[in-house]
Amino acid sequence: MLPSIDIEELAEADCLELLRAEPVGRLVFTERALPAIRPVNFVLDGHDVVVRSAPGSWADRLGGSIVAFEVDRIDPATHTGWSVVVLGKVATVTDVDTLVRLSDPRHRPWAPGRHDRYLRIRPGTITGRRLALGRN
Amino acid sequence: MLPSIDIEELAEADCLELLRAEPVGRLVFTERALPAIRPVNFVLDGHDVVVRSAPGSWADRLGGSIVAFEVDRIDPATHTGWSVVVLGKVATVTDVDTLVRLSDPRHRPWAPGRHDRYLRIRPGTITGRRLALGRN
Repeated sequence: MLPSIDIEELAEADCLELLRAEPVGRLVFTERALPAIRPVNFVLDGHDVVVRSAPGSWADRLGGSIVAFEVDRIDPATHTGWSVVVLGKVATVTDVDTLVRLSDPRHRPWAPGRHDRYLRIRPGTITGRRLALGRN
Repeated sequence: MLPSIDIEELAEADCLELLRAEPVGRLVFTERALPAIRPVNFVLDGHDVVVRSAPGSWADRLGGSIVAFEVDRIDPATHTGWSVVVLGKVATVTDVDTLVRLSDPRHRPWAPGRHDRYLRIRPGTITGRRLALGRN
């Protein structure tokens, strides 16, 4: 018999802790009226998600828009894991001090080329779910 | 010095082959005018992505809408991997023969409970990108 699986809604603090340990997430936005999704590197800056991308790309068109940002870890064998979704408004980072602080070379961009566009997602909501094998 | 990384656009056949080997993807859609994303179990049925979900959920509202479906494998240590995105229109599966065929017990749903709603995504576009360490 298949084991039972429990869904647990995660508290915001737990979501942030999970996000802090991951380097790659998925940015979800609307492009030409169609849903779009891209894996991106990110760091947490306080509660904000900061995404690094190339200038002149889709990233340039996101300022002011509402996006979703998702990170998950799912074990395909056991079908257990977690998923955290941040929903928030995008602001392009232009403050020089912030740019220098965020330009930590350890945060290498996922895609090659010049990646000096930083987008900040200020969370409106942070939600998460964990799936675990049931005890019985 | 950080190694160089090459981006390679994937052919549709390669994208389908990658999809065929994965059990979990992410469904991207619009919910109350906001971007939404959910990890889901899926199978390929020909070139179609078939997603299994619970009735009475968000899945009920997706019939006829355009969604994105993403699967990726990214190594956080090397920042290499791949991402495939299917963009297409959702149809609820109602044909009994198809439902029986898709109800293979090996395709266990990711979330618990009754999951007898099947959504078919007929691909309009299938795109993929692979990132690899450069040779120099």
